[in-house]
Amino acid sequence: MARNTAVPADHNAPPITRQLAEFVASHPSQGWSDEVDREAVRTFLNWAGCAVGAARHEAVDAALAAVQMLEPAPQATLFGRPERVDMAGAALLNGISSHTFDFDDTHLKTIIHPAGPVASAAFALAEHLGRSGRELLDALVLGIDVACRMGNLMYPEHYDRGWHITGSTGTLGAAAACARLLRLDAGQTAMALGIAASQPVGLREQFGTMTKPFHPGGAARAGLLAALMAQHGFTASPRALEAPRGYAQVLSTKCAWNEATDELGQRFEISFNTYKPFACGIVIHPSIDASIQLREQGVLPEQVERIELRVHSLVLELTGKKTPTDGLQGKFSVYHGCAAGLIFGRAAEAEFADEIVRRPDVVALRDKVTAMVDDRIDEASADVTAVLSDGRRVHVFVEHAIGSLQRPMSDEALDAKFFQQSAPVIGDAASRALIDGCRRLAMLADVRELSRLAAG
Amino acid sequence: MARNTAVPADHNAPPITRQLAEFVASHPSQGWSDEVDREAVRTFLNWAGCAVGAARHEAVDAALAAVQMLEPAPQATLFGRPERVDMAGAALLNGISSHTFDFDDTHLKTIIHPAGPVASAAFALAEHLGRSGRELLDALVLGIDVACRMGNLMYPEHYDRGWHITGSTGTLGAAAACARLLRLDAGQTAMALGIAASQPVGLREQFGTMTKPFHPGGAARAGLLAALMAQHGFTASPRALEAPRGYAQVLSTKCAWNEATDELGQRFEISFNTYKPFACGIVIHPSIDASIQLREQGVLPEQVERIELRVHSLVLELTGKKTPTDGLQGKFSVYHGCAAGLIFGRAAEAEFADEIVRRPDVVALRDKVTAMVDDRIDEASADVTAVLSDGRRVHVFVEHAIGSLQRPMSDEALDAKFFQQSAPVIGDAASRALIDGCRRLAMLADVRELSRLAAG
Repeated sequence: MARNTAVPADHNAPPITRQLAEFVASHPSQGWSDEVDREAVRTFLNWAGCAVGAARHEAVDAALAAVQMLEPAPQATLFGRPERVDMAGAALLNGISSHTFDFDDTHLKTIIHPAGPVASAAFALAEHLGRSGRELLDALVLGIDVACRMGNLMYPEHYDRGWHITGSTGTLGAAAACARLLRLDAGQTAMALGIAASQPVGLREQFGTMTKPFHPGGAARAGLLAALMAQHGFTASPRALEAPRGYAQVLSTKCAWNEATDELGQRFEISFNTYKPFACGIVIHPSIDASIQLREQGVLPEQVERIELRVHSLVLELTGKKTPTDGLQGKFSVYHGCAAGLIFGRAAEAEFADEIVRRPDVVALRDKVTAMVDDRIDEASADVTAVLSDGRRVHVFVEHAIGSLQRPMSDEALDAKFFQQSAPVIGDAASRALIDGCRRLAMLADVRELSRLAAG
Repeated sequence: MARNTAVPADHNAPPITRQLAEFVASHPSQGWSDEVDREAVRTFLNWAGCAVGAARHEAVDAALAAVQMLEPAPQATLFGRPERVDMAGAALLNGISSHTFDFDDTHLKTIIHPAGPVASAAFALAEHLGRSGRELLDALVLGIDVACRMGNLMYPEHYDRGWHITGSTGTLGAAAACARLLRLDAGQTAMALGIAASQPVGLREQFGTMTKPFHPGGAARAGLLAALMAQHGFTASPRALEAPRGYAQVLSTKCAWNEATDELGQRFEISFNTYKPFACGIVIHPSIDASIQLREQGVLPEQVERIELRVHSLVLELTGKKTPTDGLQGKFSVYHGCAAGLIFGRAAEAEFADEIVRRPDVVALRDKVTAMVDDRIDEASADVTAVLSDGRRVHVFVEHAIGSLQRPMSDEALDAKFFQQSAPVIGDAASRALIDGCRRLAMLADVRELSRLAAG
C-alpha cells in the first residue's frame, strides 16, 4: 500500500490553465505584427515541405499500415501521399512525416520542434471543417505560443530528465490550436488543455528510432482528440497545468510560472522559430556549417589527417555516435555530420542516406574526426580545425550556424529547401504550386485548396 | 540553450524490455494455475459489468460524440451501447466507461486498476480479429502482468509524484495484450512496448473529473495502436523501459528492476487483483465497511451525534472532500462514504448519484463525521466510532474491507454486482446471458459471441 513519500509541491501556482485558455479563445485574429504573421507562414511552409519530403519513408508506411487497420474514413489529406484517412490519423501521420528527417523547425530556446504537433493537428482539423487559411494561421500562432511557453516554463530540467519536449508540450499546443479552430470558448479551451495535459508524449531514449518522429505525431493526434472531446462537454481539471499533481509539477522540477504569461499577446514564441538547413538535430549544425566553410576554404578530404572538433558537452551527449551504421544513426553522429559537410558541402536528407553513411570514403573521413568537450563553447557554436597531411592547420569558428535566429534562412532558401524535398515525391509542378499555395495561405478562403496539391 | 543539469541515471539496468517481450510472446497459453485462470475470468467479468453499467454516463456520451467526429468504421462493440466504432475508439470508450463509476478492479499493491486499459484494448482487438476466448484470457493475464510489474517497479514514488498509475502503466499492459493477440514475435513485442512507453497517460490532478476515467481509455487506445504499429514494422528503442532516458527512469526515481522479472511466469499479478463492492476509490472502503457494520449493529442515523473516524493520512489526502456537491465529488469524500454506508447499508453507484450526495439527511449525517489522521492505522483499515445522542459509543475496527485480498468477493457477489449495474442498461435477460458468456469465456471459439449481448 501507499507510503507518503515527500514530494515538494507548489500550491500557489498562478491559474495558467485558465489564463492560456482565455488567451487562445479570445485573442483577436491576426492580433500581432506582420513579422509574426510572416514567420507563421514560413513555419507552415517548412512543415509542409518536410511532411511531403518524408511521405514515402518506411516509418510513414508502417504507421499508415497500422492506421489502415482501423479502416479510417477519408476525411483528411496525407502530405505527399494519395491515401486519405480520418483527422486523427492524418494528424498522426503528417506529424510523423514532418519530423522523420529531423529537418523541421526549431524553437531554439527549448529545442521544441513546434510545427510537427501543432500544424499536423490543426491542418487536419481545418481541412475537415473547411476553415480559411487565416483561421489556420491564427491557430498555428496561438498553439505554438502555448507549446513553447510551457516549454520555456520547464526547460531545461524537463528535457534533461529525459522528456522529448516536442511531444510532451506538443499535445498542449495541438489541443490549443484545435480548440481555436473549433471556436471553443475559454472554459471549453481550458478543458481541452486539461485533457491534453494527461497525455504527454515522448522519451529521449527513442532518439534514433521511428518513435522519435512518432512523438510529434502522437502529440498531434492526442491534442486533436482532446479538443474534440472538450467541444462535446468532456471535463478535466481547470488547474491541470499548474496544480501540485498537474502537468508541469509532475513533469518538471523547474516551473517558472511567469513564462506562461509574461508579455502574453505581445511577444509570440513563433517569432523565435528557426528552420534547419541540415537534415539532422540542431546541435550538429554549427559543426556541419564549419566543415562546409573548411571546404569553401579549399580543404579537400584526401588532404585531411584529422579534424579536431571542440564543442559543448551537449553536442556529444546528443549526437556522439562514433560509428553510425545507417542513415537514422548518422543523424545522431556529429562525426558523420562533419564528414558530410566537408565531402559534399551540404547535409540534406540525401547525405544521411544509409549508403552514404556506409560509404568507405565517408567512413574514413568520419574516423578522422576527434571531438573534445569544451563547455566554454556555447552549444550554438563549434570550433573546428582541419589538420592536413602537409602539416597545415585550417581553423573555423562558427558562433551561430546558418539557420539560427542570428543567421536565418531567407524565404528563397526555404522555398528551395521545400522544393528539394518535395519534387522527388510529388513532382516539380505540384511542388511549385504547393509552395505558392503555402505562401498565399493567409488569403485562402478554404485550406482545402491545398489538399489536392499536397497529396501530389 | 540547454544546460546539463545533473540527473542521476542508472546505466546498468537489466534488459527488462526484452525480457518482458519474450515472456509475452512465448509464454504458453494457460501456462498458469487454475486459480490464475479463474481470477482472469473474474477480472474480465467485473470489467464488463462496470463498462455496461456506466455506458450511458455523460462522460461516455461526450467521448463518443468526439469519436464520431472521426466517422469511425463499425469494427468493435461498445459495452452497453448499440453504436459501433473502430477498434481504437472502442478501446477508448470501453476504457472510459469501465472506470467512470470507480467500480472496477484494483491491484492493491499499486492501486492500479488493470482491466480498464488492458481488457478494453484486448477485447476490441480480439473482437475485430475473431480471436477465441482462450486467446483473450491469455492476453489479459500477460498484459496485466506487464502493467502491474511495471507498477510494482515504480510504486509508490511514481504515484506519489502525481502519476495516475493506472494509465501510465496501462499503455504498456494494453500494448502487451494486443501484441499477444496479434501473435507478434518477441522482437515486435519489444517494439510495441517501446512505442507504448512514450505514451504514459494520466495525472492525479484529474481525479474528480471525466479525465480520470479517460486515463485507462486513453491508455487502451495508445497501447492498441502501439501494437498495430509494431506489427507493421514501426521501431522503438529496445531498451525503452529501462534506459536512463527511458520510461521507468523518466517517470520514477524508484526503479526496483527485480520487480519486472522476479518469479516471472510463476507468480502472476492478476492473482492479486480485487474487485470493489463499493463504487468509489479503494481507500474509502474500510470506512464504508465499518459504517455498514455500525448499521448492522443497530445504529440509526437519527441517533448519531457524531462519527469519529481514524484513518491513515492517505485516506484524507485522496478522499478528504468535506462538502462534495455532486456524485463525482462524493466519490472523493470519505465523509459521504460513511454517511451512505450508515444510511443505506451499501455504496453502489446509486448511492453516489448527485441527488443522494445533496439529500439533506445525507448531508446532515456527513457533517457529523469528523476524520482524524492516525498513521499507525494502515490504509487498508479504518477505526470508526459512532457517538450517539444518549452518550453511547459504538466502535468498529475494520482491518481489511470486504473486497480485499483477505476478504474477497465471492463469484456470486461479483455476478450480483454485475447484474445490479447492467440490468438497468441492457435489461435483465441480456445481463444474465452476458454474465453467463463471461463465465464461459475460456470455452468461446470466438469472442464475438459476446458482442451482441454486450451491446444490449
